[in-house]
Amino acid sequence: MFFQDPKLQYEVTVEQPDPHFAKLLQQAIGGQEGEMRVALQYMFQAWALPEEYEAYRNLLMETAAEELGHIEMLATAVTKNLRDSPKEMGDDAQETAAAASMTGQNPRQFLSAGESAVPVDSNGAPFTGNYIVASGNLAGDLYANVMSEAAGRTLATRLWEYTDDPGMKDMLSYLIARDTMYQNQWLEALESLDDPVPVPASFPQDEENQEVNYTFISTRREEQPNPDHPWTEGEAPDGKGQFSYAADQPGDGNVVAPDPDPMTSDDPNRTDQ
Amino acid sequence: MFFQDPKLQYEVTVEQPDPHFAKLLQQAIGGQEGEMRVALQYMFQAWALPEEYEAYRNLLMETAAEELGHIEMLATAVTKNLRDSPKEMGDDAQETAAAASMTGQNPRQFLSAGESAVPVDSNGAPFTGNYIVASGNLAGDLYANVMSEAAGRTLATRLWEYTDDPGMKDMLSYLIARDTMYQNQWLEALESLDDPVPVPASFPQDEENQEVNYTFISTRREEQPNPDHPWTEGEAPDGKGQFSYAADQPGDGNVVAPDPDPMTSDDPNRTDQ
Amino acid sequence: MFFQDPKLQYEVTVEQPDPHFAKLLQQAIGGQEGEMRVALQYMFQAWALPEEYEAYRNLLMETAAEELGHIEMLATAVTKNLRDSPKEMGDDAQETAAAASMTGQNPRQFLSAGESAVPVDSNGAPFTGNYIVASGNLAGDLYANVMSEAAGRTLATRLWEYTDDPGMKDMLSYLIARDTMYQNQWLEALESLDDPVPVPASFPQDEENQEVNYTFISTRREEQPNPDHPWTEGEAPDGKGQFSYAADQPGDGNVVAPDPDPMTSDDPNRTDQ
Amino acid sequence: MFFQDPKLQYEVTVEQPDPHFAKLLQQAIGGQEGEMRVALQYMFQAWALPEEYEAYRNLLMETAAEELGHIEMLATAVTKNLRDSPKEMGDDAQETAAAASMTGQNPRQFLSAGESAVPVDSNGAPFTGNYIVASGNLAGDLYANVMSEAAGRTLATRLWEYTDDPGMKDMLSYLIARDTMYQNQWLEALESLDDPVPVPASFPQDEENQEVNYTFISTRREEQPNPDHPWTEGEAPDGKGQFSYAADQPGDGNVVAPDPDPMTSDDPNRTDQ
Amino acid sequence: MFFQDPKLQYEVTVEQPDPHFAKLLQQAIGGQEGEMRVALQYMFQAWALPEEYEAYRNLLMETAAEELGHIEMLATAVTKNLRDSPKEMGDDAQETAAAASMTGQNPRQFLSAGESAVPVDSNGAPFTGNYIVASGNLAGDLYANVMSEAAGRTLATRLWEYTDDPGMKDMLSYLIARDTMYQNQWLEALESLDDPVPVPASFPQDEENQEVNYTFISTRREEQPNPDHPWTEGEAPDGKGQFSYAADQPGDGNVVAPDPDPMTSDDPNRTDQ
Amino acid sequence: MFFQDPKLQYEVTVEQPDPHFAKLLQQAIGGQEGEMRVALQYMFQAWALPEEYEAYRNLLMETAAEELGHIEMLATAVTKNLRDSPKEMGDDAQETAAAASMTGQNPRQFLSAGESAVPVDSNGAPFTGNYIVASGNLAGDLYANVMSEAAGRTLATRLWEYTDDPGMKDMLSYLIARDTMYQNQWLEALESLDDPVPVPASFPQDEENQEVNYTFISTRREEQPNPDHPWTEGEAPDGKGQFSYAADQPGDGNVVAPDPDPMTSDDPNRTDQ
Repeated sequence: MFFQDPKLQYEVTVEQPDPHFAKLLQQAIGGQEGEMRVALQYMFQAWALPEEYEAYRNLLMETAAEELGHIEMLATAVTKNLRDSPKEMGDDAQETAAAASMTGQNPRQFLSAGESAVPVDSNGAPFTGNYIVASGNLAGDLYANVMSEAAGRTLATRLWEYTDDPGMKDMLSYLIARDTMYQNQWLEALESLDDPVPVPASFPQDEENQEVNYTFISTRREEQPNPDHPWTEGEAPDGKGQFSYAADQPGDGNVVAPDPDPMTSDDPNRTDQ
Repeated sequence: MFFQDPKLQYEVTVEQPDPHFAKLLQQAIGGQEGEMRVALQYMFQAWALPEEYEAYRNLLMETAAEELGHIEMLATAVTKNLRDSPKEMGDDAQETAAAASMTGQNPRQFLSAGESAVPVDSNGAPFTGNYIVASGNLAGDLYANVMSEAAGRTLATRLWEYTDDPGMKDMLSYLIARDTMYQNQWLEALESLDDPVPVPASFPQDEENQEVNYTFISTRREEQPNPDHPWTEGEAPDGKGQFSYAADQPGDGNVVAPDPDPMTSDDPNRTDQ
Repeated sequence: MFFQDPKLQYEVTVEQPDPHFAKLLQQAIGGQEGEMRVALQYMFQAWALPEEYEAYRNLLMETAAEELGHIEMLATAVTKNLRDSPKEMGDDAQETAAAASMTGQNPRQFLSAGESAVPVDSNGAPFTGNYIVASGNLAGDLYANVMSEAAGRTLATRLWEYTDDPGMKDMLSYLIARDTMYQNQWLEALESLDDPVPVPASFPQDEENQEVNYTFISTRREEQPNPDHPWTEGEAPDGKGQFSYAADQPGDGNVVAPDPDPMTSDDPNRTDQ
Repeated sequence: MFFQDPKLQYEVTVEQPDPHFAKLLQQAIGGQEGEMRVALQYMFQAWALPEEYEAYRNLLMETAAEELGHIEMLATAVTKNLRDSPKEMGDDAQETAAAASMTGQNPRQFLSAGESAVPVDSNGAPFTGNYIVASGNLAGDLYANVMSEAAGRTLATRLWEYTDDPGMKDMLSYLIARDTMYQNQWLEALESLDDPVPVPASFPQDEENQEVNYTFISTRREEQPNPDHPWTEGEAPDGKGQFSYAADQPGDGNVVAPDPDPMTSDDPNRTDQ
Repeated sequence: MFFQDPKLQYEVTVEQPDPHFAKLLQQAIGGQEGEMRVALQYMFQAWALPEEYEAYRNLLMETAAEELGHIEMLATAVTKNLRDSPKEMGDDAQETAAAASMTGQNPRQFLSAGESAVPVDSNGAPFTGNYIVASGNLAGDLYANVMSEAAGRTLATRLWEYTDDPGMKDMLSYLIARDTMYQNQWLEALESLDDPVPVPASFPQDEENQEVNYTFISTRREEQPNPDHPWTEGEAPDGKGQFSYAADQPGDGNVVAPDPDPMTSDDPNRTDQ
Repeated sequence: MFFQDPKLQYEVTVEQPDPHFAKLLQQAIGGQEGEMRVALQYMFQAWALPEEYEAYRNLLMETAAEELGHIEMLATAVTKNLRDSPKEMGDDAQETAAAASMTGQNPRQFLSAGESAVPVDSNGAPFTGNYIVASGNLAGDLYANVMSEAAGRTLATRLWEYTDDPGMKDMLSYLIARDTMYQNQWLEALESLDDPVPVPASFPQDEENQEVNYTFISTRREEQPNPDHPWTEGEAPDGKGQFSYAADQPGDGNVVAPDPDPMTSDDPNRTDQ
C-alpha cells in the first residue's frame, strides 16, 4: 500500500534551463538504466517473496518507494529545463527556427506532453516492461539490482559531466550518492545469503554436466594454448571447482532439422492432398 | 570475424517429442534470459573496449561465439520437438482438434516458421535489443553478465524440471554446466579489476552528496526504529563508508511545474493569438 | 515523494487456486487497461501541471498512489493462484503433462518469475510506456482518464465473469467499485473546468477551417442523403456550431510526391556521380 | 470494403520546405495521437459491433475512411517538406555538414525511405497496435474516441504553432477543424446512448463493493480533513451515488506470497531432488 | 482519398465456430505476414513515388485498398468464430473451466475486445510499424512486396490446413488466390523495370569494391575447395559479373576501439576531475 | 557451431571522425535493413531446413557468419567516429554546448554505451526480432533475402552519399560490393529451385479460388476501363495463368458481427445476472 506527499524527496533547481539537457534526462526516467525500471523491478521482486524472506521484501519495498520519488525529481527537472527556457518557443518571428532546434531535442516532450517529461528514454524509445528483472530467485534478483544500480550510477555520472548547471549538478550529486548506497545495500544483502553462487543454489550441482562446468572452452578459429588467465586456471570463485582450459569446442551432432510435416512445408514434390 | 562449422557444439536428441516443450524452449532462445541476448551483449561489450582491456575483450568474444552455438542447439531442440511429433498435425480427421491443441502452444512456430524456432520468448513476445546491456564500463558490464548468467541458469534449471525427456535433460544439463562456468568466469573477471565498487570507479566520490551515500532512508509511512539489518549499520561492502539509518526521507522542495508556454498550453483564459 | 506500508489496500484471498486465472489477471497488471498504466499515467500528468492547477495535481497524485496498491493486490492474487495450486507442477510423474498444461498458461510466470506476476499483459506482451497519455493539457488528460477507467472497469467485470472463486470475486468487486468512483471523479473534474470542448480550448477557434469544423463528411462510395443522425444535424455538444452533412469529400490536390534527390534515389537514368 | 481515388481529400502545399518540420509531422502519422491510430481504431471498433448498433458501425467506418485520407495528406506534406528543400542534401562540398544536420532530423526518413514518410512517431519510435483501443463496449470506445481526437487536435494545434509556412498552416487548420467535428460527433454519440456511466453499464451495480464505490480515498501520508472538492462531496455525475471522503486507505491483509514450488525456487535449504 | 461500403469484399461464413481458430487468424490480421502490414506498406510506398511512376503508384493504391478489405474479412471471421461458439463462455457452472480453456486461446480477444479481433499476431504480440518496408526505391519495394505476398500465401495455406470448416476453407481459398495474383503482379512490375538488379540500380557500380562484388567468401573454419555450386561459379543473374570463390575471409585490421573520453569512461586510474 | 578471430573481416579507418555519422551508421547495425537482422535471419532459416536442403543450409550459414563480421566492422566504425572526435566532449568550458550538440546525435551512444555502438537503429529504436523472416519455406525465405539485401545495399549507398570521409567511403564500398554478391547469390539460389512461384509451391493450386487468382481487381471509386498494364492482361510470370481485369470488387456479404455473449457485452438492456 502506498502513500504520497506533495514534496520532492530532494529539492530540484535549474539555473540555466537547457531543453537539450531535458532530452538527456529522459534516459534516467524511461531508459534501460532509469528509475521507472528500478522502481517497478523492486516491487515485482518483493511481491514474489514468501514469508521467510520478509526482511528482503521490506528492503525491496523501502527502496522501490524511494525510486518513485526519484522519477518525480527527474520529471520536475525536465519541466524546469523546458519551460523556464523562454527563447526556445513561441516567438512568432522564430517559429521555424524553433522547430529546427526542437528536432534535435525530444519532439514528444513538446508535441505530446506540452513541455514536460514523457515515459521514454533519451533516444525517444518507450519504456518497456522488458527491462524489468524479477525472477523469483532472490540471489539472481540481487545481482540484477547491483547491475541496475551500477548502470544507473554510470548514467548519472555521465549526465553530471554533460551539464554545468549548479542545480542539475546538485540533484545528480544526490542521485549518484543514492546509487552508491544502493549498490552497497544489494551487495550486503547478497553477502547475507548463504552460498548463492552459482545461481540458483537450489539446483543439485551433480545433475549438471561435470565435464564442462568449470572449463573455459575457447572458440578461437586456430587452437591456442592456455592463456593462463584467472578464469582458465585456479579455483573458481564459488569454491566448488577448479578452472580448466579446452582449446576447442566439443563439437558433436549434426545441425539437421527433421523433415517438416509435408502438408505445411514447401515440398516441391507434393502434388495433391 | 566469425567462422562456422556444420556441427553442433553438443549433441541434441529428443526421445519423446513434445510440441509444448518446444514453446517453453523459446524463452532460452529469444527471451530476457536467452542466448540471443547474451551472445549479442558480449559482442557489443567487447567492441567498446580499448586496447588496454584486450584480455577482457578476448574473454567476451570467446564466450559470445559459444553462445551463438547455444542458440543453434536450442533451435535444433525446437524443430526436433515439433517435427518428430507426428500426432499433432496433419491428420485430416483431427485438424480442428490439432488447431485447438496448437493454440496452447506457440502458433508462430507453426504458422510463421513451418514447425521451427522463432526469435521470440516463451510468451511469444519478440526478441528486442532492449535486453542488451553494454555500457562501455567494464565493471558494470561484468555485473550485467553475472546477472544474465544467473538468470540463464535459473531458466535452464526450470526447463530441466519441466521435462522428463532424457535427451532434453542431457542437453539442459550441459547448458546448466556452462552457465555455472560463465557465472564463475565473470565473477573472477570482476575480482581481477581493481576496486570496481561503486561503479563507475572513475567518478570522484567526493563529488557525490556526502549526507546520503551510505544512509538507508526508510520510506515507511510510520517512522520505524533502525531495524539493525546488515544494510543499516556496519561497514559497507565497498569499504569506503559506514551504513547509517534515517527513519524519514529528507523531503524538500515542492512538486510544482513551471507555467508552460501559453501558446502550447491549455490555458482557458487565452482568447486569441 | 512516496511512502509504503507492508499491508495490502484490501485483502486478497483465493479459495480455489487457478493458474489459468493467473494468466488472465496479467491484463489488469501490465495490459493496455491495467494498473501499471494508470498509476504511471496519473503521475506523469500531475508532474506537468503548474501551480494554478494544484487541486488537480493533488487529485492525480492521490489516485496514482492508490493505483500502485492495486498492482500490488493483483500481483498477490497471481502468486496465490499459481503457488497454492499444488497439482500443476512438481509432480515427478506428470512433469511432461505439467509442461503441456503450462503452455496454455503464461509460461513466463513460471520460467521467468518462479510462479509470480510479470510486467506483461494477458497475451504475454510486455508493458510499454506507449500506453501512457499525459499531454500537458488537463482537459485532454481527464478524458484520457475517463477512458482508462472505463476500459479498466470493463476488464474487471469480464474477469469477474470468468471466475467462480469467492475470493477473486470479492477482490474484483472492490476494484470494480473503485473504477466506478474513478470514472465519476474524472467526469466531475471535467465538469469543473470552464468550457473544455473542443480540446484544446486555448486554440483560437476562428483559426480553424470554418467550412468543415461541424460538417459530417460521408466517405460512402455512393453518395447518400443526410441520414438525419444526431451527429449530422442540430446543435453540436460544444454549443459552438451546428452539425451539417456533406455527401462527398472535398477532394482536392493530387497525390504526387516531388522528385527525390537524384543521388539518393533509384533513378535508372543516372549513370554517374 | 474500401475504395480509393488518386486525389487528396484536401490540398497540401508547402511554400518553404523544412526538413525539420517533416520530422515533427511524423507524430501525426505514426504517433500515439496520430492518424494511423484512429483510422485503425475506428475500424476495429466497427467490426466488433452487432447488428443493432448499425448506425454506430456506419459512423465509425465513415470516419475511419476519412482518417486514412489524412495519413495520405500528412505523408504528402512530409515528402514536400523533405524533397523540395534542395540545400539539405547532395551538395558534394557539404556532405558531412548535411549528415550533421540530418541527425537532428529523422534519419530514417532519409536512410530508410528516400526522403519520405515512415510509420514512426516524431521521436522515431515505430507505430504500434498498442495504441489502438477497441473494447467491444461502445460507450467505452466512444470515450476513447473523444480522448483520441482531443489528443489529435492538441497535437495539430501545437504543430500549427511550430510552423510559419502558409501551406502547412492551411493544412493544419483543416485538420484542426476536422478534429473539432470528431470530438463533437463522438460526444453526441455518447449522449445518444442510454445511461452509459459507469462503463460498462451492463454490470449489475449491486455486485460492486458498496463501501467504496463513491468514496474518495486519500493516500496522503498524513491524514487530511475533507478538502471539500467537487469529487469528495455532493452527487456523482452518474446520478447513482453521493461522493464521500475517507482520510485513509482501508489497509487489510498482508503482502505475503505463498511459498513457491520447492523444485523451481531458490530455497537454500534444498540439497537434492 | 478513401471510400467505403458496408459490404465485405467476399462473403465470410463459419459453420463450426472455433475460438481456437480465431486465435490463429490473428496472424493474418496483425502479424508479420498479415494484412495490416501489406495494406499500410503499399500506401507508404505509393506516397513516396514521384510523378513519372504514376502507373506504379496507382498499382500500389489499388492493392492497398483491397488489402484493407481483407483485414475486414478476417476480423469478421474472428468474431464469427468467437461469438457463435456458445459453449465457451458464460455458463455459470463452467466459468472456471471456460477460463482455463480461454488461456489457451487469445485472452485479449475476450478481455480487451469482448470477443472480437485485436491488432496483434497469433502469439498475441502487437502489430508494429517495424514490419512495413517502404524504401523510396521502387525495385527494392517490389521485391519486398513479392516477399510479403509469398509469406502471406504461405500463412494462408497453413491456416487452410488447420481448419475443416467449409466456410473458413472457402474464405482462405479466396485469399490464397488473391495472393497468387499479387505475387504475379509484383513480379510483372519488376520485369517492367529496366535493369533493376543489383538494387539500387542508380549507384555507379564501379564505385563498389571490385574485388569482392561477385565472390563467394567462405566462412567455414577449415578451408574448403570450391563446392561448385551455382553461386560459386558461372555468370551472376544480374549479367554484370562472374561468380568466384574464396576459401577464406580477407581478414584485415584489428578489432580495437579507441580510448573513450576519460571523463565518461571507467578508467580506474582517474582520481579527480 | 561458431568460431572467431580477433581481426576484422575488412579494415575500418576513419580520417575525419564525425559523431553525427556514428548516429547514421546505427541503421546498418540495428535497423530494419541492418546486419543484425540478416545475420540472425539466415541462421533461423538454416536451422529450419531438413537434410535434403543441405546445400542451401550451408549457403545460409556461410553468409550468416560473414554478416556477424559486418556488425563488428560497423560497431568499430561507430567507436572510431565517436571517440576520435576530441572536440565533442569533455571540454569543461563547453559542456552545455556539448550536450546541445549531443542531443542531435544518438544520446544512448554516449549515455548508455560510453561512446560506442548500441543495438538500435538510426532513429534510436531498439532492434527487434520482428524484422526476422524465417518461414520454413525456402523459396519464400530466398525472396526475403533478396529483399533484405536490396534494402541493405540501398541503405549502404545512401550512407556512402552522406560521408566524405575516405575511410568510411572505403568501408561502405566494400559492404556495397558484398550486397551485390548477396543479391546475386540469393537470386541464383531461387533459380536453382524448381518452380517456386507462386510460393508456396506445395499447395495444390486447384484448391485456390479459380475466379480471382489471376484477376486484377480495381478498387477505384469510379469504375475504370482496363488500363492495359502488363499486370492486367497477358501471361502471368508464373506461366500458370492469364491476367484479366475486373473494374469492381465482387462485394458480397454484410459486415455484421454476431451478438456477443451478453455477460461480457455492454448491452444497455441487461438489468441483472
